[in-house]
Amino acid sequence: MKIEGRNAVYEALKSDSTIDRLVVQRALKDPASQNIINLARDKGVKINFVDKDALDRESITKRHQGFICSVTDFKYADFDELKNICTSKKKPILILDGIEDPHNLGSIIRVAECAGCAGIVIGRHRQASINETVIKVAQGAASHVKVARVTNINSAIDECKHDFITVYAAELGGENIYKTTFNHPCAIVIGGEGKGVKRLTKEKCDAVLSIPMRGKLNSLNASVAAGIVVFEVLRGLGK
Amino acid sequence: MKIEGRNAVYEALKSDSTIDRLVVQRALKDPASQNIINLARDKGVKINFVDKDALDRESITKRHQGFICSVTDFKYADFDELKNICTSKKKPILILDGIEDPHNLGSIIRVAECAGCAGIVIGRHRQASINETVIKVAQGAASHVKVARVTNINSAIDECKHDFITVYAAELGGENIYKTTFNHPCAIVIGGEGKGVKRLTKEKCDAVLSIPMRGKLNSLNASVAAGIVVFEVLRGLGK
Repeated sequence: MKIEGRNAVYEALKSDSTIDRLVVQRALKDPASQNIINLARDKGVKINFVDKDALDRESITKRHQGFICSVTDFKYADFDELKNICTSKKKPILILDGIEDPHNLGSIIRVAECAGCAGIVIGRHRQASINETVIKVAQGAASHVKVARVTNINSAIDECKHDFITVYAAELGGENIYKTTFNHPCAIVIGGEGKGVKRLTKEKCDAVLSIPMRGKLNSLNASVAAGIVVFEVLRGLGK
Repeated sequence: MKIEGRNAVYEALKSDSTIDRLVVQRALKDPASQNIINLARDKGVKINFVDKDALDRESITKRHQGFICSVTDFKYADFDELKNICTSKKKPILILDGIEDPHNLGSIIRVAECAGCAGIVIGRHRQASINETVIKVAQGAASHVKVARVTNINSAIDECKHDFITVYAAELGGENIYKTTFNHPCAIVIGGEGKGVKRLTKEKCDAVLSIPMRGKLNSLNASVAAGIVVFEVLRGLGK
């Protein structure tokens, strides 16, 4: 969906919508425009600065005021709903700590769909949200998986623990996943590409679980690691 | 590595090298040129037809004769070597049946590295080979994993069975992987994106193994499926 005009774009940026693309007219120096540009930067939205002609060509309403953005219409789920499904049906929750690559997010959504997970939790900032690429890579799975956005991953972990959901971080250097007993409702934290699960986040978790590695580099793609861990948890739960 | 000139490009195409990119001058009608173009098409190499000027600019030797290609210097392993490692050390072989996406191939190489697999077998035609993208996605793992190219995947399966390597196809509709006993050297066939393991190939295998699915779509990314199956086989082998 295309949104045009200064106010409409500003509201879209403030809302929960995912901005796929923001095109801004070059050299707008007024405070209101700067405000929108700063908000977009703060939200990690990529901005294309172009000439007025380019915006004129792209505009449908012809009243773009220097701003046009494309928004993905994806309905995020409620985090409480995910926790309820997790505790009542023993379906695991996947918590993503800084997954930035939309291909990985799409692939993880497919994992969650195949595994019948309660859903996926993603942070609101500095990580991939559900955009057109993610929906395409997920190959239809995005319509079947609940994704909740939270402002703070660490608070989400606290809330899980408060509801008696065991939270595991999937990361090198922890307990062997094949020697862990899974008999509780649980959530699994998957770290971002490169950095893995952040230290503070890891400390919040009940335990760190590791896939036993036999190589020299021992670096799995985040979606592959998520798949191995989730399916092992399900095996443990006897599902 | 860049290769220029009609004969050099022709030899590169005939060899085991991976052609990343082939640039050909527009409107070359002579039989020798047509011969090279046909060979490239037959090998599934993508051809960019450009003006002579573009080739002149790209050429280092300035004797391109209308043909420039880029070749990846990757040393493929010998299939017999993989079989030896598999039987002597009970390390699984991954056989890829038509993986076309270089991202998936790169990700599967990371799986093989982490799992300490004997190596990966890929077909010579109509599937991704080791090019720059694959090496980049594999993030260093390509230097540690043996990859063998074979002309015919089905003959490779026969050779495995002849050497008492059990060959499993990973595919929907087979035995539950968690109820299968793994105590033999084995090879796992992973099917391509979309199509999965081909019917004839599946019939050649000793058994079809499936990850139990709990969703509606139940479609995993090929590299994720490879990861889940390989690590479950390793668990079964007590590794």
